[in-house]
Amino acid sequence: MAKIGDTLKPFTTQAYKQGKFVEVSEAEAKGKWSIFFFYPADFTFVCPTELEDLAGIYPKLQDMGVEVFSVSTDTHFSHKAWHDSSPAIGKIDFFMLGDQNHSIANNFDVLREGQGLADRGTFVVDPDGVIQLIEITSEGVGRNATELLRKVKAAQYIRNNPGEVCPAKWEEGEKTLAPSLDLVGKI
Amino acid sequence: MAKIGDTLKPFTTQAYKQGKFVEVSEAEAKGKWSIFFFYPADFTFVCPTELEDLAGIYPKLQDMGVEVFSVSTDTHFSHKAWHDSSPAIGKIDFFMLGDQNHSIANNFDVLREGQGLADRGTFVVDPDGVIQLIEITSEGVGRNATELLRKVKAAQYIRNNPGEVCPAKWEEGEKTLAPSLDLVGKI
Amino acid sequence: MAKIGDTLKPFTTQAYKQGKFVEVSEAEAKGKWSIFFFYPADFTFVCPTELEDLAGIYPKLQDMGVEVFSVSTDTHFSHKAWHDSSPAIGKIDFFMLGDQNHSIANNFDVLREGQGLADRGTFVVDPDGVIQLIEITSEGVGRNATELLRKVKAAQYIRNNPGEVCPAKWEEGEKTLAPSLDLVGKI
Amino acid sequence: MAKIGDTLKPFTTQAYKQGKFVEVSEAEAKGKWSIFFFYPADFTFVCPTELEDLAGIYPKLQDMGVEVFSVSTDTHFSHKAWHDSSPAIGKIDFFMLGDQNHSIANNFDVLREGQGLADRGTFVVDPDGVIQLIEITSEGVGRNATELLRKVKAAQYIRNNPGEVCPAKWEEGEKTLAPSLDLVGKI
Amino acid sequence: MAKIGDTLKPFTTQAYKQGKFVEVSEAEAKGKWSIFFFYPADFTFVCPTELEDLAGIYPKLQDMGVEVFSVSTDTHFSHKAWHDSSPAIGKIDFFMLGDQNHSIANNFDVLREGQGLADRGTFVVDPDGVIQLIEITSEGVGRNATELLRKVKAAQYIRNNPGEVCPAKWEEGEKTLAPSLDLVGKI
Amino acid sequence: MAKIGDTLKPFTTQAYKQGKFVEVSEAEAKGKWSIFFFYPADFTFVCPTELEDLAGIYPKLQDMGVEVFSVSTDTHFSHKAWHDSSPAIGKIDFFMLGDQNHSIANNFDVLREGQGLADRGTFVVDPDGVIQLIEITSEGVGRNATELLRKVKAAQYIRNNPGEVCPAKWEEGEKTLAPSLDLVGKI
Amino acid sequence: MAKIGDTLKPFTTQAYKQGKFVEVSEAEAKGKWSIFFFYPADFTFVCPTELEDLAGIYPKLQDMGVEVFSVSTDTHFSHKAWHDSSPAIGKIDFFMLGDQNHSIANNFDVLREGQGLADRGTFVVDPDGVIQLIEITSEGVGRNATELLRKVKAAQYIRNNPGEVCPAKWEEGEKTLAPSLDLVGKI
Amino acid sequence: MAKIGDTLKPFTTQAYKQGKFVEVSEAEAKGKWSIFFFYPADFTFVCPTELEDLAGIYPKLQDMGVEVFSVSTDTHFSHKAWHDSSPAIGKIDFFMLGDQNHSIANNFDVLREGQGLADRGTFVVDPDGVIQLIEITSEGVGRNATELLRKVKAAQYIRNNPGEVCPAKWEEGEKTLAPSLDLVGKI
Amino acid sequence: MAKIGDTLKPFTTQAYKQGKFVEVSEAEAKGKWSIFFFYPADFTFVCPTELEDLAGIYPKLQDMGVEVFSVSTDTHFSHKAWHDSSPAIGKIDFFMLGDQNHSIANNFDVLREGQGLADRGTFVVDPDGVIQLIEITSEGVGRNATELLRKVKAAQYIRNNPGEVCPAKWEEGEKTLAPSLDLVGKI
Amino acid sequence: MAKIGDTLKPFTTQAYKQGKFVEVSEAEAKGKWSIFFFYPADFTFVCPTELEDLAGIYPKLQDMGVEVFSVSTDTHFSHKAWHDSSPAIGKIDFFMLGDQNHSIANNFDVLREGQGLADRGTFVVDPDGVIQLIEITSEGVGRNATELLRKVKAAQYIRNNPGEVCPAKWEEGEKTLAPSLDLVGKI
Repeated sequence: MAKIGDTLKPFTTQAYKQGKFVEVSEAEAKGKWSIFFFYPADFTFVCPTELEDLAGIYPKLQDMGVEVFSVSTDTHFSHKAWHDSSPAIGKIDFFMLGDQNHSIANNFDVLREGQGLADRGTFVVDPDGVIQLIEITSEGVGRNATELLRKVKAAQYIRNNPGEVCPAKWEEGEKTLAPSLDLVGKI
Repeated sequence: MAKIGDTLKPFTTQAYKQGKFVEVSEAEAKGKWSIFFFYPADFTFVCPTELEDLAGIYPKLQDMGVEVFSVSTDTHFSHKAWHDSSPAIGKIDFFMLGDQNHSIANNFDVLREGQGLADRGTFVVDPDGVIQLIEITSEGVGRNATELLRKVKAAQYIRNNPGEVCPAKWEEGEKTLAPSLDLVGKI
Repeated sequence: MAKIGDTLKPFTTQAYKQGKFVEVSEAEAKGKWSIFFFYPADFTFVCPTELEDLAGIYPKLQDMGVEVFSVSTDTHFSHKAWHDSSPAIGKIDFFMLGDQNHSIANNFDVLREGQGLADRGTFVVDPDGVIQLIEITSEGVGRNATELLRKVKAAQYIRNNPGEVCPAKWEEGEKTLAPSLDLVGKI
Repeated sequence: MAKIGDTLKPFTTQAYKQGKFVEVSEAEAKGKWSIFFFYPADFTFVCPTELEDLAGIYPKLQDMGVEVFSVSTDTHFSHKAWHDSSPAIGKIDFFMLGDQNHSIANNFDVLREGQGLADRGTFVVDPDGVIQLIEITSEGVGRNATELLRKVKAAQYIRNNPGEVCPAKWEEGEKTLAPSLDLVGKI
Repeated sequence: MAKIGDTLKPFTTQAYKQGKFVEVSEAEAKGKWSIFFFYPADFTFVCPTELEDLAGIYPKLQDMGVEVFSVSTDTHFSHKAWHDSSPAIGKIDFFMLGDQNHSIANNFDVLREGQGLADRGTFVVDPDGVIQLIEITSEGVGRNATELLRKVKAAQYIRNNPGEVCPAKWEEGEKTLAPSLDLVGKI
Repeated sequence: MAKIGDTLKPFTTQAYKQGKFVEVSEAEAKGKWSIFFFYPADFTFVCPTELEDLAGIYPKLQDMGVEVFSVSTDTHFSHKAWHDSSPAIGKIDFFMLGDQNHSIANNFDVLREGQGLADRGTFVVDPDGVIQLIEITSEGVGRNATELLRKVKAAQYIRNNPGEVCPAKWEEGEKTLAPSLDLVGKI
Repeated sequence: MAKIGDTLKPFTTQAYKQGKFVEVSEAEAKGKWSIFFFYPADFTFVCPTELEDLAGIYPKLQDMGVEVFSVSTDTHFSHKAWHDSSPAIGKIDFFMLGDQNHSIANNFDVLREGQGLADRGTFVVDPDGVIQLIEITSEGVGRNATELLRKVKAAQYIRNNPGEVCPAKWEEGEKTLAPSLDLVGKI
Repeated sequence: MAKIGDTLKPFTTQAYKQGKFVEVSEAEAKGKWSIFFFYPADFTFVCPTELEDLAGIYPKLQDMGVEVFSVSTDTHFSHKAWHDSSPAIGKIDFFMLGDQNHSIANNFDVLREGQGLADRGTFVVDPDGVIQLIEITSEGVGRNATELLRKVKAAQYIRNNPGEVCPAKWEEGEKTLAPSLDLVGKI
Repeated sequence: MAKIGDTLKPFTTQAYKQGKFVEVSEAEAKGKWSIFFFYPADFTFVCPTELEDLAGIYPKLQDMGVEVFSVSTDTHFSHKAWHDSSPAIGKIDFFMLGDQNHSIANNFDVLREGQGLADRGTFVVDPDGVIQLIEITSEGVGRNATELLRKVKAAQYIRNNPGEVCPAKWEEGEKTLAPSLDLVGKI
Repeated sequence: MAKIGDTLKPFTTQAYKQGKFVEVSEAEAKGKWSIFFFYPADFTFVCPTELEDLAGIYPKLQDMGVEVFSVSTDTHFSHKAWHDSSPAIGKIDFFMLGDQNHSIANNFDVLREGQGLADRGTFVVDPDGVIQLIEITSEGVGRNATELLRKVKAAQYIRNNPGEVCPAKWEEGEKTLAPSLDLVGKI
């Protein structure tokens, strides 16, 4: 699987976004924060609730300079058809990447061997194309966009404030820690 | 890296738990839910806040039948010394596994190449020894025990209720989904 | 690519058929004639005209003891959604096989390298599981169900009448040839 | 087997054409449409009916700029002797290629392992030397030159009219389809 | 190439003999003397003169218990057609083996690399299936059935008379030599 | 074994010729026709009759520009001793090559595995160093210099008269054949 | 294991020294004598007595131009915490190297396979980076700093006095030996 | 090199001991403590002072149940001659092993590559054949039998008193340490 | 090359001995002493003087139970012819082995690479088939049968008198040495 | 083993010669004749008689321009000690090479596998560094310096008199042979 510190691998694919088919590559994610949000298949059950949840925080993420790419092993034709027919999916404004040749799922090593479907994995990538956060849940367990938002903020904070680290459960605006020799063994 | 669906690999090591040194193996995690909670090093900065956060939910986890194993590449001697000297770490009642030979970190593939330290990774394993949830954050971003609790509950729920799945942000007691042909493309 | 005389390879997948999801394997094609009809993707352009054309001869094929399996690299969820929304596809009563893990397309060696889509290939398989007829057209050229019907009839005729062969353009009821030493060099 | 999109491989051989022995290479097929028409053996049964059928459409194919090459694993001496003695074969004006070293049959991967005979395969190659149409029938099932003509016309049409595709059963002069986003899932 | 002392390798093929198609294998040559007579191609120039020459001594060979197999890489269909149309070939009563899959020519290692034609080679095989005499001439040089007859007689003589050897130019009825210590260096 | 069309391989050895020891290499055979005449051993039985037979035609061969090299795995010392003591061998004026290191016999692939003796093989090589005729007889069957002379003449004739070929049993002065399209299937 | 005469291999690590964290590499040991003093783990039993013993001779070693590096597979954080809490370790003024990635222990080949702990090994390295003295004791047997001092002096003496060697038990100021031919077999 | 914890490898050789030549194998060292004492060569300079030093403690070692084997790459003949001629060596009563085939020096990995001489290495082996102590000094630095005696006593003590360990500089009769959880970080 | 202590390898060949051709194998040399006497070639120069010299001591060797085998890469036919024509060779009564396939020369590793001739090597083999003496001289240096006799006697003596050895230049009847500890360094 | 015609391989070692230790390499043997005289071990039994025998002819060998090198796997220290204590060895004035690293014995391939001792081999090397004579005797059979002298003289003679060879038992001053064609088979 992709690991913390790995660099985003190249890809090129067709995506559906806001009524259009567009070609997307890894270049789209360079120079800004990005979220790759994998799910098993269009027209299924947990997936739309998660995608709708994510759609809800997309405006905030855009304000924070974060792009979002949802990915399944369906085609962009299928994404478009789903967007047309599902009220939940119809709310999505971000990129829906077609990955029927499995290359993006393989790039992040989340393809379920033998099934041709991606695991339910979230990857947060920084502006240098380096993976900073990973979360994967088994089939049937829905993710939580609010917690994702918290972690993206923490990751942005420590990138912007070298020398500080965010303690457990840190929320935007709370105190952080500044590591120093004196703190060793004292927390 | 370990993937959703992988089985817990065998290990044997010394641990510190509640004033004693005990030998622990993968057998300790079989037949019950378990959490493997990796962190970089004893006597450092983010780690104690996360471990204290986790210590806070340990009683609830025990009620839910979930065991907890914290792991770093320090020895059990070091864990004991840290437990003695740190007020935060002193609250821990769960297993603190010594992994100075790196075998457990390698089992879950979270050893940082060249540094000899583990990534900040959480792995939830079901009673069959199968990994169900994964979360990894980069250096400096603290995890959130409350969200972990939510996900463990969801994972337990779908194991106990075959045929149901938990939508995004699901909290204990909320409605779940039951996949059926009629729902295809309708959510 | 699969060749004349090759034997049908094993597969297992989910299919959509007449309002139901069913598991289908190569066993379904054994002991009867069968047609595997590959096309690139659901929700596209030439494909539905070909599938509708094929749907038109399905009753005759059933009378002749021939089963039909359409295959694309989409999921059975996607097939169901397409069947629900497209008037042409809604006429289909045969098996629509999901092949998102590419195993059936690879079995017949019609996967377009790098695209994750199948070529427009038709394979007629006899009751012993042996491929007897192959036709493949490039993107953009539609097939012809009437000609397919003619060839299936010829293949069935020569299986049932050992010692006879069907000349070019042979139609059901026309004269065939019986090879003999005397005919050598005389036609 | 040769696949849609493969490029014509180099060959050099002796051919019989209209009373002469000529050396032919793949260069003869470059820059124009061409048909490679394989059959098992001279002096046999189905083959002459198919070759005669093909001879019948040769004038039209020539008008469309399409060259024809029939191929078996016999020598050009044998082709000449057959042309001399058979009324059906005597009508052939196109190239009859000798392939006793099996190189052309191997180029298209239609050699029957162990028999030294070619399968009954038709390959239509475009002016760039790229295979666009494939058809192969088992021993005993004759091909249909009329259907071949229909498909060659469709292939020529879409090459000459980028952005259009030919639906199933398309005949010269009929309407074609122009793929667009709006058509997705609507046919 | 096959060498003196090599054993006849197994083969199975179709042959034309006296108005019939028959299946022939190496078993046909076991327990009797046999001649394998290779030539490049049916319907060519030197070959028929050699085959006619051989046909002339066939009755004598049969009296001597020797079977004859002519072999080219043409099919048995082609042999039949040639036998029908050529006055010289029409005199042949022995087996004309089809070898379009090149297996017999390869068994004796006389296939011309890249041409798919056999060299002009004669192999005399004894009743144990062991090669005793070899002769090969380049394209354009005809063999001599009379000399072949002389050598087959010599080979049969020494098999039947252990302890004797035939000097140069030996003809049936002439004196042979009996090797002995006293003859060493004395001839 | 060496095959028709193979090129003479390099060698260097000591030879006995007309009362002298001379060093001979493949250069001696370049630019003229040559015969390599292998036999098993000096001081044996069939060999001297064959060598004497060959000695008889050596003057004619010299007139035709053909050099002769006899070869066995004996040394040149042994050849000289045999030439001194045997009346038959004493008549030889051509090169008697020593091949005790087996390199020439291996070049023509006529070494009997395990015995260290050469087979009774004749190889006629043209002025370009290309093998044109091969004849090998088993132990005990003597060759015939008269037939060898006939074949060398035929080989020289077709080299000098491109476009003509010699039919079976052709003798110097007889009619040859000129291959043409019209002759196909007519002989 | 590292051998007498081996050269110090490159390393880079974090160390604790006199209240500071410093980065240390093999460059620190070049151009002066140095001692690498391995022990199994911080917070254990024999180790602190040995380290205290070594701390006692550190001033003399410094006068002699010898640097000291203690090494265990603990981190520098752990070393600092131990230094803070242990009266014996608190006396240490030399470098305490963190080796949690095992690279230095592997450089000297003293890592106990499977345990992730170093053996109790002492290595004296000369100013050219060449190992001159090695001592390793099993778990439970403490080393002796006085004897180490004696051997370092002897090693320095023979480096400074080429042509002399130090006999057994040699102490500073005692007579040495000067090897010569006359001494052979006479001692 | 041999490491702490390695087991004594098998060997067989000739030794000189107290006026006799005896065959010695690793069996001689089993069931008792033993010292393998390597030195470069007979008839040299430092070696005899070390061997004489060792000879001095041999009676005490025998009382402690410890056998001694000195080893160089000389033969037992050479050892005998040296013993005869050198006053220092003449005092030796222990085994002097011949190792001219280098097998014992290789077993302990102390052979100097290219010189055929052993390093100045001491190995103490316990009754189970396991190496417990190692010391190696460079050419020119003499070892110290008194310190060796101290360490052998410590090794024997901890073997006989499980649960105790000997601190640095421990001498027979002094206090030892008993590791316990309470001591962690307290020494 | 064969070494002292190697065992005689198996061989089978034809030999000339006292007017007869006999088959000889290594069995002939088992259970008795034997001499293998290699020389380059029959009919050459140094060889006959050495073989005549050896023939002179053959009666004595026979009395001592020693068999003699001379070997060259000539055939037994050549040996016979040489024996007939040479006065020196005519005196030989021992086995003259033909080795034209080089197997015996290769067994003793005395074949001159590229020449096909054996070196001038003598090998004395004891009744157990073990090589005890070796002598090889370059081309042009004759051996000495008298010295060979001396060495064979010495070899037989020490086999028959275990515990004694023969000093330099020892002749039959002279004193030998009995190795003992007291003699070490005293001769 | 080294063979006649092999070239002296490079070596460097310490030697004892006339009261001094000197470094010797293969350069010492270039440009003059040399004898390498191997023996098993210093302080043994046959060896000193052979070395004394060789010492006796050393003055003559020096007059003939021949250098002598004795070699065993002992050190030069051991050689010196032996020279000091043995009356026989005390007579040696030539080089006594130490070969405790076995490199020279391996160069000539005379090391007894597993024993670490050299075989009793003599090698005479010409001024070009090429081995001309070899003699090896088993343990217990002493060599003969007088015969060695005879052979060295013969080898020098034929080097100085090209075109002549020395017959068996040749002694200085006796007649030699000049090979010529006329002598073939006449000796």
